[in-house]
Amino acid sequence: MRPDGRQPDELRPFSLQPGFSKFAEGSCLMKLGDTHVLVTATVEDRVPGWRRAEGGGWLTAEYSMLPRSGRERNQRELMKPNGRTMEIQRLIGRSLRAVTDLSALGERTITLDCDAIQADGGTRTAAVTAAFVATFEAQRWLLERRLIKKPFLLEPLAAVSVGVVMGQELLDLCYEEDSRASTDMNVVMTASGKFVEIQGTAESEPFTHQTLAKMLGMAKRGIDLLIEAQKEVLGLG
Amino acid sequence: MRPDGRQPDELRPFSLQPGFSKFAEGSCLMKLGDTHVLVTATVEDRVPGWRRAEGGGWLTAEYSMLPRSGRERNQRELMKPNGRTMEIQRLIGRSLRAVTDLSALGERTITLDCDAIQADGGTRTAAVTAAFVATFEAQRWLLERRLIKKPFLLEPLAAVSVGVVMGQELLDLCYEEDSRASTDMNVVMTASGKFVEIQGTAESEPFTHQTLAKMLGMAKRGIDLLIEAQKEVLGLG
Amino acid sequence: MRPDGRQPDELRPFSLQPGFSKFAEGSCLMKLGDTHVLVTATVEDRVPGWRRAEGGGWLTAEYSMLPRSGRERNQRELMKPNGRTMEIQRLIGRSLRAVTDLSALGERTITLDCDAIQADGGTRTAAVTAAFVATFEAQRWLLERRLIKKPFLLEPLAAVSVGVVMGQELLDLCYEEDSRASTDMNVVMTASGKFVEIQGTAESEPFTHQTLAKMLGMAKRGIDLLIEAQKEVLGLG
Amino acid sequence: MRPDGRQPDELRPFSLQPGFSKFAEGSCLMKLGDTHVLVTATVEDRVPGWRRAEGGGWLTAEYSMLPRSGRERNQRELMKPNGRTMEIQRLIGRSLRAVTDLSALGERTITLDCDAIQADGGTRTAAVTAAFVATFEAQRWLLERRLIKKPFLLEPLAAVSVGVVMGQELLDLCYEEDSRASTDMNVVMTASGKFVEIQGTAESEPFTHQTLAKMLGMAKRGIDLLIEAQKEVLGLG
Amino acid sequence: MRPDGRQPDELRPFSLQPGFSKFAEGSCLMKLGDTHVLVTATVEDRVPGWRRAEGGGWLTAEYSMLPRSGRERNQRELMKPNGRTMEIQRLIGRSLRAVTDLSALGERTITLDCDAIQADGGTRTAAVTAAFVATFEAQRWLLERRLIKKPFLLEPLAAVSVGVVMGQELLDLCYEEDSRASTDMNVVMTASGKFVEIQGTAESEPFTHQTLAKMLGMAKRGIDLLIEAQKEVLGLG
Amino acid sequence: MRPDGRQPDELRPFSLQPGFSKFAEGSCLMKLGDTHVLVTATVEDRVPGWRRAEGGGWLTAEYSMLPRSGRERNQRELMKPNGRTMEIQRLIGRSLRAVTDLSALGERTITLDCDAIQADGGTRTAAVTAAFVATFEAQRWLLERRLIKKPFLLEPLAAVSVGVVMGQELLDLCYEEDSRASTDMNVVMTASGKFVEIQGTAESEPFTHQTLAKMLGMAKRGIDLLIEAQKEVLGLG
Repeated sequence: MRPDGRQPDELRPFSLQPGFSKFAEGSCLMKLGDTHVLVTATVEDRVPGWRRAEGGGWLTAEYSMLPRSGRERNQRELMKPNGRTMEIQRLIGRSLRAVTDLSALGERTITLDCDAIQADGGTRTAAVTAAFVATFEAQRWLLERRLIKKPFLLEPLAAVSVGVVMGQELLDLCYEEDSRASTDMNVVMTASGKFVEIQGTAESEPFTHQTLAKMLGMAKRGIDLLIEAQKEVLGLG
Repeated sequence: MRPDGRQPDELRPFSLQPGFSKFAEGSCLMKLGDTHVLVTATVEDRVPGWRRAEGGGWLTAEYSMLPRSGRERNQRELMKPNGRTMEIQRLIGRSLRAVTDLSALGERTITLDCDAIQADGGTRTAAVTAAFVATFEAQRWLLERRLIKKPFLLEPLAAVSVGVVMGQELLDLCYEEDSRASTDMNVVMTASGKFVEIQGTAESEPFTHQTLAKMLGMAKRGIDLLIEAQKEVLGLG
Repeated sequence: MRPDGRQPDELRPFSLQPGFSKFAEGSCLMKLGDTHVLVTATVEDRVPGWRRAEGGGWLTAEYSMLPRSGRERNQRELMKPNGRTMEIQRLIGRSLRAVTDLSALGERTITLDCDAIQADGGTRTAAVTAAFVATFEAQRWLLERRLIKKPFLLEPLAAVSVGVVMGQELLDLCYEEDSRASTDMNVVMTASGKFVEIQGTAESEPFTHQTLAKMLGMAKRGIDLLIEAQKEVLGLG
Repeated sequence: MRPDGRQPDELRPFSLQPGFSKFAEGSCLMKLGDTHVLVTATVEDRVPGWRRAEGGGWLTAEYSMLPRSGRERNQRELMKPNGRTMEIQRLIGRSLRAVTDLSALGERTITLDCDAIQADGGTRTAAVTAAFVATFEAQRWLLERRLIKKPFLLEPLAAVSVGVVMGQELLDLCYEEDSRASTDMNVVMTASGKFVEIQGTAESEPFTHQTLAKMLGMAKRGIDLLIEAQKEVLGLG
Repeated sequence: MRPDGRQPDELRPFSLQPGFSKFAEGSCLMKLGDTHVLVTATVEDRVPGWRRAEGGGWLTAEYSMLPRSGRERNQRELMKPNGRTMEIQRLIGRSLRAVTDLSALGERTITLDCDAIQADGGTRTAAVTAAFVATFEAQRWLLERRLIKKPFLLEPLAAVSVGVVMGQELLDLCYEEDSRASTDMNVVMTASGKFVEIQGTAESEPFTHQTLAKMLGMAKRGIDLLIEAQKEVLGLG
Repeated sequence: MRPDGRQPDELRPFSLQPGFSKFAEGSCLMKLGDTHVLVTATVEDRVPGWRRAEGGGWLTAEYSMLPRSGRERNQRELMKPNGRTMEIQRLIGRSLRAVTDLSALGERTITLDCDAIQADGGTRTAAVTAAFVATFEAQRWLLERRLIKKPFLLEPLAAVSVGVVMGQELLDLCYEEDSRASTDMNVVMTASGKFVEIQGTAESEPFTHQTLAKMLGMAKRGIDLLIEAQKEVLGLG
């Protein structure tokens, strides 16, 4: 039995709230159980030096947790340049770039600030899912001001975690499950069912091909539900 | 005329929301117009080395803004060790300690994490006001668990900004007013009407005794309203 | 009784020594009892990037203490990016800018390096007082070389500390008094009697309106004496 | 055609040289084409603070490249706390821990220093493969001195990269291929054919289930050859 | 001809002023022409961790220049961890330790803070010379309080610079000479005429054995005069 | 007797291996007993800002040790900005510049990366000796591509350590000898027998003129052998 009584392949209750921030060009608060992540999308008319030669734009992400977002307080000064944070923000940035036509974006940078207000497992995948919504809002902001001529987002994308706890494959691990998982995997997929990122790690014991297949199946079903919700809050067909 | 049509001595609409965070021992989200500040209070069973000799506890504050809390994005790496941030967190910590009996707190540290989710002027004074509520919740948490025998908070306290714009004294400056103010002052006062902190700065031209008196009067009226609201949300007489 | 037998409203013996440094465009060593602060003013033909658009010059201050300026040694590496240092250098810079016509300065930066050679309380207010003298010397240096056409300093300004020790208001606290003060206030005023900065802090107990009034009165008397001395060493009417 | 004429599922010529360093408890130089990685294993009689409560040992990895290991020089100061480096050293540490019985190691830390002397793609997977050999040597060193009673390594493990270039799945990408790959995947597997880590990233376009299956198959064949070589140089049955 | 008309083997006018700082256990201000260096000696009852096992004390030095000590202002933030500063403070510490019996000092650390108030060449050698005086004062302070039983300083030591400018060997280079020197050498010697440190560097062209001999002879004569002056201000036979 | 049975004036067995790195413009691995140092020379078409005004090129060095190059592991994060490292890289850079005609180099920077793969004493002098070979290779690379018209290296140079152990002068100290030496000296000389750098330090007791003379004689003999080997591997007359 899961701590909150869910089925193995059941997502936590979730909501996506676009337009959460008054000042940002795009934003979305995602609540996924007790995990609350705010993503803002900032549009700026400049690109990093090394991008200038290539033309087109850039999209990057930063990730942080409020010091007391979780069960224990993390010291602010220890939160910045650590390996976990960097892995996460690289993952978010790469994922969104995979569905972005950077040349259609023009010489602009979109920065996705992903801040976990409350953290109960799955903040990085919630950040990817919310980041798509925030970026879509920023795209609208640019289209409405006629700063770009056509959309640069190619298709929706979302992310979810899967894992193995006590020999059982589970979808969308909460913190308590995550800390006991023998295998932990994050999957990022597009609306058309293709992979953008697969990061599977055996925390305590190596896993088999069969387990891999089960986890990928569960992830697909979860991601389909999330993408459906994205489309709804964004008013897409 | 003020940008939002307020009277010179009128506060922005505000709310105090205790218990905003599920995991922290105390928390409060304060909305003051478009300024939204979240304060969490974390209780830990340790004190800094230099406090140990003296006995009693410690209370400290940290302050940060989300990168895109305001009109422009601030780079995360530039936000940390700067002078403004340090001034603010020192102000918040000193203010709360002025109404705290540290020996009654026992060998514990309360850390107040003040994070501006959205920023439209007055984040530091909103943080002080919300910090009192969060600390009061943490006090209750300790009393309920019988970890302390009596309250350590001596009386309520709140803070507000005042300033001079175009020769007119104004209460509770929003960002637009603040950026045009010739004098800017932050006042922290207790329920009993005593000063805890006065920080007045002539941004462009020195100010007179008379202006000082008017600003202190306005601040008193604003702080009285804020303390009334604190008492209400905390269920105090 | 004060440790050195002074009256409550009496300054420590003090001296201002302009021209202390051979190489700087302006300089002043201020001795205020056992507090010795050296301020040098450096003139450079450039302004920070963000000032360039606005035209005019810039004036900024940096503050440091020699590691063994006081009773205990401070580690050099711990002395730099701390909150107290930043608060002090921001205070000094803001104060001097309040009496500076930055457009008359032209596209130049004046950097005031304030270094406490010996520290016995009141280093930040001594730095403000000496900084005016050093800046005035730098102004002369620019006028003599006809690099500017008219003075950019609007009027003299000086600073002093006041506080409450054992219920008694005192002018110009030495270190021993400062460490026992229940309230501590720094006041910066101009020759015309206007306020540039008021920073009052209740260290252990909140203070009343009446105490505030007494402290401001004492500060005024001390600052008048300091400005008189500035005029004398600078040969001003 | 591949730049060096290899078949799509062919590894570059490689060698494993245990005992490369005179002073370390274990070491291995792996040459994989023009990629040369040195791994040393250092055994120390202490564990990180947070491990002490749990008993048992710890194993961790650090990764760096010599500044001129590749085609261009990287500035030394820019090489340290960056995201890529941290991802890599976390990957190496996690992988080796997955085949290590930390309690059998006793209260010791093994630090694997992985330094790329020359870099032509695949340094991180070469580091994992060499790290197993270096750790095995350290295990022998401990067994010979009777500091541990039984081996702590559970089974051999090795790693390899696979990817998609111009629509073709390829094993063991060199730098030139890697920089043109649309998908890039690192796979870490054990001798018994289980996964320890799968990190697949769509660099420019999302990939299908079918592509995933082909890449995993190629990786398996490469890893089998590498594990065979590990056993040979270590004199294992 | 030298800029100030000195003979090739003539020191600049100099003075040593012990007891310059009120609070330090030992101190000395050395003026050597326009170079003014303040050294304070701080005695603390602790030794670095790595010294504890060996017993005895430790002596270390730190060196810094005030930002506007010289002809140009140096940015404070650039002054700290640079190579030149570290070389200098290592030189000063090593030199003083060479005439210190660390076991006679007991479990104490003496920290020599060497700060150049004004800099016109030769600050590092002036710092060594003044450091001996400050350390001697600290020794007296310890003897007077009976914290040590016997002196720990073995014999006086002083330092001087020599160099080659336009083919001519010169003693005690001022800044202008130093910046044009083809060879630059710092020599630290004891009262008994032995070498503690020789650091000779060909800035633009390698130098011969004969030049080396001439420079060492000049240095010896300068150091003898400096040690004579040290003995006088310290009241030594 | 020396630990490895050498005569007092005998070098350890050594080799110089040019062309060690495939990608660098010049490189050399020097083995000197158990000390192995790799030097790569990188040529870049830019000079530091402060060099631009003067015309001509620049040559600089960086030095590092692999964490487990020696008997104990050094923590990577502690290895970077320390005083010893900076002294060494400044020594290497200055030495090579002393035999380089920077104007003949053109507007280019040569960066010498000196990395100790294994360390048993004498890494800094081995780095100087290998750096000459790597720089010579880079010179050839530039000449062959006709990027420069004539050689910029003026003459060969090499370096060696000498010291005093148990009252006996010794050439080329290994780590064990170095840690027991009362005097330690590094000497850099040119093929024509001139000094480029002399750095002699009394570690525990000051040394006499006579000892200095003996050490310089030994150093000369060692350096002559090293320069002979350099010429041989470079195919010079």
